[in-house]
Amino acid sequence: MSSPVWLTSVCHLSDTRAEPLPSQIYKDLTQAIRDGRIADGDRLPSSRSAALALGVSRTTVTAAYELLATEGIVTVRQGAAPRVIAPDPPGVDPRPDQGPDQGPTLSKRGITLSTDLRRQIMPASGGALVPGEPDETLFPSEDWARVLRRVSRRRLGTSALYDATYGVKALRQALRDRLAADRGVHVEADQIVIVPGSQAALALLSHSLTDPGDIAALETPGWLGARTAFLGAGLRLAPLPVDASGADPAHFPPDARLAYLTPSNQYPLGTRLSLSRRLDFIARAKAAGAILIEDDYDSDFHWSGRTIPALAAQEHGGHVILVGSASKALLPALRIGWIVVPSGLVGCIRAAQRNLGIMANVHAQLALAELMSSGRYRAQIRRIARSYHHRVRSLLDALATLPEARVHAPDGGVQVTLQFGPDRDEAELVSHLARYDLHPARLSGYCLNGERQGLVIGIGSATPDRIERLRKALADRF
Amino acid sequence: MSSPVWLTSVCHLSDTRAEPLPSQIYKDLTQAIRDGRIADGDRLPSSRSAALALGVSRTTVTAAYELLATEGIVTVRQGAAPRVIAPDPPGVDPRPDQGPDQGPTLSKRGITLSTDLRRQIMPASGGALVPGEPDETLFPSEDWARVLRRVSRRRLGTSALYDATYGVKALRQALRDRLAADRGVHVEADQIVIVPGSQAALALLSHSLTDPGDIAALETPGWLGARTAFLGAGLRLAPLPVDASGADPAHFPPDARLAYLTPSNQYPLGTRLSLSRRLDFIARAKAAGAILIEDDYDSDFHWSGRTIPALAAQEHGGHVILVGSASKALLPALRIGWIVVPSGLVGCIRAAQRNLGIMANVHAQLALAELMSSGRYRAQIRRIARSYHHRVRSLLDALATLPEARVHAPDGGVQVTLQFGPDRDEAELVSHLARYDLHPARLSGYCLNGERQGLVIGIGSATPDRIERLRKALADRF
Repeated sequence: MSSPVWLTSVCHLSDTRAEPLPSQIYKDLTQAIRDGRIADGDRLPSSRSAALALGVSRTTVTAAYELLATEGIVTVRQGAAPRVIAPDPPGVDPRPDQGPDQGPTLSKRGITLSTDLRRQIMPASGGALVPGEPDETLFPSEDWARVLRRVSRRRLGTSALYDATYGVKALRQALRDRLAADRGVHVEADQIVIVPGSQAALALLSHSLTDPGDIAALETPGWLGARTAFLGAGLRLAPLPVDASGADPAHFPPDARLAYLTPSNQYPLGTRLSLSRRLDFIARAKAAGAILIEDDYDSDFHWSGRTIPALAAQEHGGHVILVGSASKALLPALRIGWIVVPSGLVGCIRAAQRNLGIMANVHAQLALAELMSSGRYRAQIRRIARSYHHRVRSLLDALATLPEARVHAPDGGVQVTLQFGPDRDEAELVSHLARYDLHPARLSGYCLNGERQGLVIGIGSATPDRIERLRKALADRF
Repeated sequence: MSSPVWLTSVCHLSDTRAEPLPSQIYKDLTQAIRDGRIADGDRLPSSRSAALALGVSRTTVTAAYELLATEGIVTVRQGAAPRVIAPDPPGVDPRPDQGPDQGPTLSKRGITLSTDLRRQIMPASGGALVPGEPDETLFPSEDWARVLRRVSRRRLGTSALYDATYGVKALRQALRDRLAADRGVHVEADQIVIVPGSQAALALLSHSLTDPGDIAALETPGWLGARTAFLGAGLRLAPLPVDASGADPAHFPPDARLAYLTPSNQYPLGTRLSLSRRLDFIARAKAAGAILIEDDYDSDFHWSGRTIPALAAQEHGGHVILVGSASKALLPALRIGWIVVPSGLVGCIRAAQRNLGIMANVHAQLALAELMSSGRYRAQIRRIARSYHHRVRSLLDALATLPEARVHAPDGGVQVTLQFGPDRDEAELVSHLARYDLHPARLSGYCLNGERQGLVIGIGSATPDRIERLRKALADRF
């Protein structure tokens, strides 16, 4: 099956069909697998050769393959052709005996759970301009080390040993105060659950609040972590397209169980969700009995005036769950995040958290509590926000010199997105920049159907010389 | 449905039926729910009144209810009668519209995932003699605080920021050396994945290596965390009864996908798995294509001679995955555990871990690496082991004065188990001891079918005066 020519006999793409192209490919391949025309273990052609054979963009093929991977029908691995896993005929063991020497394999759930979307669209961490990575030099390491030493000499008492798996009280109280003062969200400390970061929060919530096959809506383009968390929980994904007012509630499926939103700064476009849309989303969530997960990941970094209250500050009847973390303001290495849970769910979420073992280090929690309650956390955020805002402006100034570049000045956030149309080749541009050792991510990778092209530029590593290098490297293309 | 008399018209228990009593009750209730004789939302009688009505022990009813809870057919909540969740007729939405004011609810998976077995058999943490809680005063907090301060002043570099979600290299190397020297396990540092503790390890492995409905075998009596992790992953549980040679491989189901074992010190009985059984388990796992999870949780605390190598030290062809943690030797608050993964699975397990967000604090990892590589970790373990061993001997001496008490001197571990027959009332005995402010756990709670009675006594909090108080409190019963 290595020659992609057979694909044209399987996939009959047409403008007259109702579905978009990726769905057409997905449906035709699924049918062929069901028919036995494509067998278990067969390899599909690479996205590049499939795109050539079918006369579509590579992005379209990638999107189709992702749909198949979501359903566990193919495995997609970096650097290898996707391999087909045919659904089992009834009554047959899904794991054929492979003999004692093959060693154990992943389950179907495990294959979905280990989806690696990041690797497909960005290089390993540490590259210049890779999005999502804060500047470590802004971390107040001396202050942190001092506080950490002090708190780790304390006797914790048994409650901090095993029992308070959902977080130490001092941190939950400090967060309660901070959420009320800075985000307009008024809750009890007992509603706050401490986890090792936003990703843990999304995994915990999606596993606790949904069943496999449920529908989760999420922004497109949107944060990859939400997509992998939802795929890992076996959910079907529904796209919420984003425009200048943020995600569009008109696309909220009436039977959705969850929706993932970044209302303060849409990730990665940097737009803010309008008030009317906020209210619309809440109304739809109430009608559907669904939950909106508000990722407040970098609400501290606003570039267009005052911070506005969180979505969770609206009356929402328990239908909004706020998620936040210290990863952007301090350091991802601390592995501290938080969830604000409706009071009726607190006991269950705590138990599920304990059973999943997603607990944060206690000394780091105590140190963060001290920084927050002493006001140093807020001072740190102001300092880091000034620095990031300066870089965003420099980057925007540099990009403004390119006559054909369309750059939206973000309302906030720690990345800048440069968008362009289908007349440009995103993959080629990324390769071009890699030769300058610059590694922004591909915007299409953040889209559920690869529907937009562009570059997502991280500002954590955007030093003046890198910004200048980027400008030069882009100058002969824009 | 509050009067339990109707139960006798639903459940027809008999010695002539093939299944054990809990399975009979489970089957009859499931049938009645399918028939519609018991409706969605109905409450089942309490285990106490059901036991009276059916003429069986309360333990039997509890076991039956747990089976129903495992399948998501009833919800069991502390202090409330179990409530029936009827399976959905096809085509009907599983979540009836509850109106906008009810707020969100847990999903069926969430209900299973939030099973709280601990609360049913032991008081909140911090009680005297509660098992599983180490003595915080043995933690070398001054040394830890000093090292922690030093490592947290270091620049971590981007690899420790986001990318090394599977653990910092220094710790994985220190663990590799330690596993080779102390446990006879020779692996690459890249096979080691760092997580926030044993529970996280079990959750990650059970979600990655199984599909819902797969069979997981586990020791009975056995560690509750394994049971909740497997229930949370939607697995069916198969019992591995334990005797003086450890878990019995004759009960290993040929279609099992996973098995959970504590070969060094069976938890909570403290027996060691014999060599012949070790080899037997490995042979059966190979034949079944299954994986044995070896929980090496307190292999450092051996009371009967030299530590023997881990099960993973045997030739196992990738069918043994070793799990360990620093919780017992240092402090659970650190939230550091590790998994030794077969090399073929490393990439996938790392990706699944990242998607679930179960990552450990980086500074604590660096501090532990330094303690391990400098030899202070081993010295600390020797010190703590001497102290625990002293307490175990004192406790055994005190219990030896009770003529009717059957106490097995454990080969290791940080708890001592006192067993007794059905002529004694375990629940009454636990209440009796609670009046002395002593809170050992009920052995029946660690059993899949409540088949044994006894007390599991934690030695982390076993001070001389508490041991003496226990002896006195037990003297009028044994």
